[in-house]
Amino acid sequence: MSFSEYFPIWSKLNDRQRSAIENTLISRHVEKGAILHNGSMDCTGLFLIKSGQLRAYILSDEGREITIYRLFERDLCLFSASCMMNSLQFDITIEAEKNSEVWVIPVEIYKSIMEESAAVANFTNEIMASRFSEVMWLIEQIMWKSLDKRVAGFLLEETVLEQSSQLKITHEVIANHLGTHREVITRMLKYFQNEGMVKLSRGTVEIVNSAALEALSDI
Amino acid sequence: MSFSEYFPIWSKLNDRQRSAIENTLISRHVEKGAILHNGSMDCTGLFLIKSGQLRAYILSDEGREITIYRLFERDLCLFSASCMMNSLQFDITIEAEKNSEVWVIPVEIYKSIMEESAAVANFTNEIMASRFSEVMWLIEQIMWKSLDKRVAGFLLEETVLEQSSQLKITHEVIANHLGTHREVITRMLKYFQNEGMVKLSRGTVEIVNSAALEALSDI
Repeated sequence: MSFSEYFPIWSKLNDRQRSAIENTLISRHVEKGAILHNGSMDCTGLFLIKSGQLRAYILSDEGREITIYRLFERDLCLFSASCMMNSLQFDITIEAEKNSEVWVIPVEIYKSIMEESAAVANFTNEIMASRFSEVMWLIEQIMWKSLDKRVAGFLLEETVLEQSSQLKITHEVIANHLGTHREVITRMLKYFQNEGMVKLSRGTVEIVNSAALEALSDI
Repeated sequence: MSFSEYFPIWSKLNDRQRSAIENTLISRHVEKGAILHNGSMDCTGLFLIKSGQLRAYILSDEGREITIYRLFERDLCLFSASCMMNSLQFDITIEAEKNSEVWVIPVEIYKSIMEESAAVANFTNEIMASRFSEVMWLIEQIMWKSLDKRVAGFLLEETVLEQSSQLKITHEVIANHLGTHREVITRMLKYFQNEGMVKLSRGTVEIVNSAALEALSDI
């Protein structure tokens, strides 16, 4: 599969725009755990995900993390190219959660096409609107939902992404997704275990009663 | 002052686009406290603020509120026209915080211009990026900043907006801005009073030591 099949509005580009992208596009393989972008590495370029899974998160001064959204196959990551827009004023870190293949579109190429093409600008708008909706959902979660429901929802999401009820994940990693402390997650998971919803062993959380987790998570 | 002087990219519109807007534009006066838009009233139109102050907030199922951002003179409100973009999937409420004058641009007019004009689409992009940055700032506040700092920061912001150190504001309203309960704010303000930072009386919070509030808020 080539880039043109992954880029949803390829048919709306003219020949000059297509070759500008084709001539500057970089294909990158990233290992699980690699950092593709962080706030200080200002303008890495736009990522189009060919395969794998990325995580966008923010960091506190003390090194705490919270996942803002995830990116999957065919997603386009704008915020790794934040210099593209003057008004994008925040630092985000992008990490590979699985071994991934991504295309990197240089910022100046994408920006110059976006400036002349209403189709590309509107496409970019839709992507930003979609991330915005995810972030608003996150605020609602943080503000109105208790942590037990959020942990239950996160575990269920992971079983779908990993296609397994046996999750290889540490309490620390769960805490970093949800913006809390490891100790809090450990306590919560022990409570889930006592209630017969999960079974814990070193580095693994096994979902044994997903119906109960679903009822709790209130999805 | 006319609409063309408030709309930043008026010069980039062609004659047809200008008359489409001029012929459909509505000028509205809204009283303080009026709701201009809520999630269920899907597509009210784009607001351009001529004067006054609006507040965008979300509501929990239990009726709790948190302010997402505020809009001032010359700001354009996109999310009151969320049907404009397929990917905008969240409910927001817009309320007048002061008596305000706004222009309402019908959604279908703006949308059709945005679809053909790269300039308008990119302008819209910049506005969304700017709101996105505000929302990311809010997440950082909620996640990493203790409530005393947030209350101190909010009070200082209010003194700037109201141009007065004598704030006519209830504890309930402060709670609704910050997404917490009235009782929590009351307790916090009493603590601030004991520390000599504010003076409380019925319906009023007077800032008496703004330097101490600034030091606390960590701005």
